[in-house]
Amino acid sequence: MSKVHNFSAGPAILPASAIQAGVEALQNFAGTGLSILEVSHRSPEYVAVMEEARSLVKELLNLNDDYEVLYLQGGASTQFLMTAYNLLEKKAAYVDTGTWSSKSIKEAKLFGEVDVIASSKDKNYSYIPKDLNVPQDADYLHITSNNTIYGTQYKDFPDVNIPLVCDMSSDIFSKSIDANKFDLIYAGAQKNLGPAGATLVIVKKEVLGKVSRSIPSMMDYNVHISKDSMFNTPPAFSVFVVMHTLRWIKDMGMTTIEARNKAKAEMLYTEIEFNDNFKPTTATEDRSHMNVTFLLNDESRNDAFLEACKEAKISGIKGHRSVGGFRASMYNAMGLDSVQALVNVMQTF
Amino acid sequence: MSKVHNFSAGPAILPASAIQAGVEALQNFAGTGLSILEVSHRSPEYVAVMEEARSLVKELLNLNDDYEVLYLQGGASTQFLMTAYNLLEKKAAYVDTGTWSSKSIKEAKLFGEVDVIASSKDKNYSYIPKDLNVPQDADYLHITSNNTIYGTQYKDFPDVNIPLVCDMSSDIFSKSIDANKFDLIYAGAQKNLGPAGATLVIVKKEVLGKVSRSIPSMMDYNVHISKDSMFNTPPAFSVFVVMHTLRWIKDMGMTTIEARNKAKAEMLYTEIEFNDNFKPTTATEDRSHMNVTFLLNDESRNDAFLEACKEAKISGIKGHRSVGGFRASMYNAMGLDSVQALVNVMQTF
Repeated sequence: MSKVHNFSAGPAILPASAIQAGVEALQNFAGTGLSILEVSHRSPEYVAVMEEARSLVKELLNLNDDYEVLYLQGGASTQFLMTAYNLLEKKAAYVDTGTWSSKSIKEAKLFGEVDVIASSKDKNYSYIPKDLNVPQDADYLHITSNNTIYGTQYKDFPDVNIPLVCDMSSDIFSKSIDANKFDLIYAGAQKNLGPAGATLVIVKKEVLGKVSRSIPSMMDYNVHISKDSMFNTPPAFSVFVVMHTLRWIKDMGMTTIEARNKAKAEMLYTEIEFNDNFKPTTATEDRSHMNVTFLLNDESRNDAFLEACKEAKISGIKGHRSVGGFRASMYNAMGLDSVQALVNVMQTF
Repeated sequence: MSKVHNFSAGPAILPASAIQAGVEALQNFAGTGLSILEVSHRSPEYVAVMEEARSLVKELLNLNDDYEVLYLQGGASTQFLMTAYNLLEKKAAYVDTGTWSSKSIKEAKLFGEVDVIASSKDKNYSYIPKDLNVPQDADYLHITSNNTIYGTQYKDFPDVNIPLVCDMSSDIFSKSIDANKFDLIYAGAQKNLGPAGATLVIVKKEVLGKVSRSIPSMMDYNVHISKDSMFNTPPAFSVFVVMHTLRWIKDMGMTTIEARNKAKAEMLYTEIEFNDNFKPTTATEDRSHMNVTFLLNDESRNDAFLEACKEAKISGIKGHRSVGGFRASMYNAMGLDSVQALVNVMQTF
């Protein structure tokens, strides 16, 4: 079977080595003679997986010892409420850059006052608001680093004096960042990290324990920290595949990963700019290197373009209904050959 | 490699056919040419998985159309708070039959008054309290059908006039039950259903929407129902394996499953009763068919017995610290040969 070029927005392309490790562990995990699906999460073999998955994050992001790394369940959608449950006492500041920001704002409002200090909704979220006026009395500022649906991405993160919380679901580990600038980072695994079902949370311990409300155990970061991310049965297989993805990132090196993502993005944005059939949807300076959104000038040809992509074994290219047109998600594991395949179709179309 | 007899309490033994289906889908899911880990949960191929996983539950439990079936994340531990979030307005009644009941009580107390109407804590949870005095003004009664740690199990469920909520994590689908008697059933997948990371929830729609509090989206059963259990990215691979486990249960037939579980339990309890070296820890009439707890009369020989088990490739037999001794978890997928292997070791010891 010839290769499928997987541009899916998430769940999305993963390194072949991580999938292969999953196949093997499903049949015989760490020499136990049992499937990883059947082994206790308290077994030494599995505890080693969880510990490596946590420590690789600290290593790859150069996190100092003020930070804890957790693997939880429920996706970013659960983090929308957990962040507020744990951090929002009176007021929080949010930047609204798209669907997922809006959802995080909606959940936070159940826990306190939410000050939406900037929004790009006026232009269908086609840019990232700059020059933020951050209220100094807010408990934290929440931003979304990459907007999967609208195809925008922060190139520089705001400098603030209050805790900085970031949903990095769709661009974590895609480029070098100063992670120690953040107080809380979360990311659903199913883009750059691994299978759906695991959620990475990185939290600076000093921001916790400051709200006066009672927090249910499963919603309480401190509970999960106190149990080394095994308060309850973790999403064991998902974390295992994440660990192997992180090993792959380490082997590739963050510099190579970033350069490759930049090259892929330049290849595709250049084609969109110079091909008269297509046009971009986002402000040039805010374009995402992960999710590239674009339109056909003649929208009546949309189905024909999708058909041409299908013939070239290009999958997951249809745009989200909020933007229309097309979206090419090009996460870490995607090689330049897949982007080239898409560019070829665009040139021939 | 010779067969390992897997008596793990959870994650636990699964049908070989479900694991094999997982291996295949990891490499090429439903003919897509992609791994199931890389495919959109909105793709027709995956939506079909979710729908079959939901409908098989309705079919196998003979649920009428008043019920909805969901696959959520966070395990039973998250259900401890979600049940209270959604159902507890003023007061709820709970029966305390062990560690997990106690945890559910702790979480519910954050949402309202909790009336613990019965407890077997007085005898280290070695029995199931009967003749419940259920307050008619309680919003619901919560019970735990099988106590994984203490080895007890309800043989008959209480008849009540208020909504009945049940944590069935460790014995769902192990025997025929009248599921329509319950208003809400939940179960972490990692015992009789599939890999950790998915949580089955069965809810009678009419009990929802009656509390006055605002419920965060991810905690709101009605939100998940309105989106056919795909409000956010589901734990896709876990649900896929659950679907295959349910297919296996359907192929075996509930009657066969129940008879096999009964035969396994009788084989092991008989040995415990008649072998002078061992003694049971639970009241005869309440003994679990899923988790069999037992002690050596001479506890100084515990390590020697564990060593003998290890030599016979018997895994996961060490008891939980709350009870000590040994625990043999014998979920649906375990054959009689594994129980025979354990009995052989007990007889030779």
